[in-house]
Amino acid sequence: MIVQAVKWIGDVDGFLQLIDQRKLPAECVKLRCRDVEQLYDAIKTLAVRGAPALGVSAAYGLVLAMQKLSADSNLKQGLDVLAKAGQLLASSRPTAVNLFWALDRVRLCAEKFIATKPTLSEVEGPSTKLQELRSAVLAEANAIYQEDVDMCRRIGQNGEKFIKQGAGILTHCNAGALATAGQGTALSVMFEAHKKGRKFKVYADETRPLLQGARLTAWELKHAGINVVIICDNMAGWLMKRGHISAVITGADRIAANGDAANKIGTYSLSILAREHGIPFYIAAPSSTFDLSIKSGAEIPIEERTADEVRFFEDKRIAPDDVDIYNPAFDVTEARDITAIITERGVIEKPNARKIAEHLQ
Amino acid sequence: MIVQAVKWIGDVDGFLQLIDQRKLPAECVKLRCRDVEQLYDAIKTLAVRGAPALGVSAAYGLVLAMQKLSADSNLKQGLDVLAKAGQLLASSRPTAVNLFWALDRVRLCAEKFIATKPTLSEVEGPSTKLQELRSAVLAEANAIYQEDVDMCRRIGQNGEKFIKQGAGILTHCNAGALATAGQGTALSVMFEAHKKGRKFKVYADETRPLLQGARLTAWELKHAGINVVIICDNMAGWLMKRGHISAVITGADRIAANGDAANKIGTYSLSILAREHGIPFYIAAPSSTFDLSIKSGAEIPIEERTADEVRFFEDKRIAPDDVDIYNPAFDVTEARDITAIITERGVIEKPNARKIAEHLQ
Repeated sequence: MIVQAVKWIGDVDGFLQLIDQRKLPAECVKLRCRDVEQLYDAIKTLAVRGAPALGVSAAYGLVLAMQKLSADSNLKQGLDVLAKAGQLLASSRPTAVNLFWALDRVRLCAEKFIATKPTLSEVEGPSTKLQELRSAVLAEANAIYQEDVDMCRRIGQNGEKFIKQGAGILTHCNAGALATAGQGTALSVMFEAHKKGRKFKVYADETRPLLQGARLTAWELKHAGINVVIICDNMAGWLMKRGHISAVITGADRIAANGDAANKIGTYSLSILAREHGIPFYIAAPSSTFDLSIKSGAEIPIEERTADEVRFFEDKRIAPDDVDIYNPAFDVTEARDITAIITERGVIEKPNARKIAEHLQ
Repeated sequence: MIVQAVKWIGDVDGFLQLIDQRKLPAECVKLRCRDVEQLYDAIKTLAVRGAPALGVSAAYGLVLAMQKLSADSNLKQGLDVLAKAGQLLASSRPTAVNLFWALDRVRLCAEKFIATKPTLSEVEGPSTKLQELRSAVLAEANAIYQEDVDMCRRIGQNGEKFIKQGAGILTHCNAGALATAGQGTALSVMFEAHKKGRKFKVYADETRPLLQGARLTAWELKHAGINVVIICDNMAGWLMKRGHISAVITGADRIAANGDAANKIGTYSLSILAREHGIPFYIAAPSSTFDLSIKSGAEIPIEERTADEVRFFEDKRIAPDDVDIYNPAFDVTEARDITAIITERGVIEKPNARKIAEHLQ
């Protein structure tokens, strides 16, 4: 079974159910968020993660916020609550573009509701329309959720043909159901091939320093009944050499206009090793991952993260205190080393600027 | 200062001082081994590791064993003690070829002493020659130690020219003073360049799963005053791409007649990535690492180690219980991707079977 990282349970008075990813893989605990402060903590402490999953969660966070309005609140108070909750949620992960986008989208929907439907007295006085506004906010959150589910499934359907019977597929980090509201991006391709009854094996790089591959990818593939083997990142090249890998499939965080793709550190090395061994290398990502304002990978800024992610394993120090550590979070794979980019719209083989522009039209 | 992993302190009644590598990098504790059982535990639990360091330690273990002989013991009893202690030490790390070699060498030296010097009555009766035998055993252990020290230094002297002023050197695992009685192999090259006053930076791969790079290499380079930066294994390719790496230098565990070299898992990938980026790739290893009975890398057996090395970090599980893990300990770098092999005898550029055979003559 494919896990569901993010799920709204019930109507406007319902709650948001998250798989608590802080506890994986030791245990699968469902976290019930019943107010926006609890969701803020969950996002902040990485109980939920992954750009699409964060966007959907934040949208539902606004539904939670409105549950606190008293029955005699007016619509203006409703908008105020949305604005305040939106500010709080936006401060949880300051670089999460999807989160801002989802919050904006719900806010705009609420503003549109108020601008078009009620009278001014209904906005400023006690309003019977408040329930309607709450329903409109839930409907917009549900729409964001459903679009993500559909997008994930279509990526998988567009890419599953690249996984042949008996294949050995290498993936890096977690581009799975745990990072989205749906069934993921790179892993969606595997889920769809699995649905078709194809037998294959997935090698999951453990993905240092945060081990998303070992902790999350391996867990959700196993949960879905797919044969998975964890390896350390430094073993991938040797497995290619020995003939165990027939394709590499990863996600992407940002793709430039020319097809250069930023993804979790280590992806670049895999693309070079794949080319060396004549192995196709696929990126699976929603079309919203393209940033056409960025011409090529050289312009993509690379986030450097704290040395402590490498130096400590939980509270145990594994490297000397006084030695420098370099911890870039991403690298950039060149378009020439990408066999194809798989999106919800289709497949861009041998991606280049022209093909990408056409694909996005 | 270059650390000393293994050091005999005193005369025949002295003790063996080890740096307790189980406690690195958190603290540098000197372990004083005063009997052979204590040394057995130290080897078994990896307080001391690295083929040359194990060989030297085991040789001194036989000196420790003979300290237990009473003053009225005869030479035959001396030989018995050596045999029994040798058996115990040989069982500590069953695949450590250097350990067996050193034990054999000391035993042969003792047998030779008895065969040539004393009379039969001295062998079977109380013997004033026992002190001489003990001295001969210590002298042989010291010889093994000194040969290792000299070998390490010569490797460094032969290779230091490959480290230019301002270089960025990448290394993998630990081929340093902590693995030998001397100043290591790959790291010896760095120590000698440092002695010449050259400034350079070393990038140490953390080296999953056992983290020898983060725990040991970084620590001993820092201790010697060399600028060192730890990276995760999956970052090396990206650093090459960004121009931070000007040479790769690693050790080797076994080198075939054609120059193919087995070393810690991950080395193969580095050799491919180095070639892709036009970066020279050096192996530094004693000439005893060549195994001419093995024609090429394809014949080198690759040890697979327990999944728990990857699944657990100390006692903390980082991967699901029920997911398979593949944990090969070594891989094989092809001779064509090795710029040069540096030994205590000199340098073999673009190694091949003919050049290697000549080098070893």
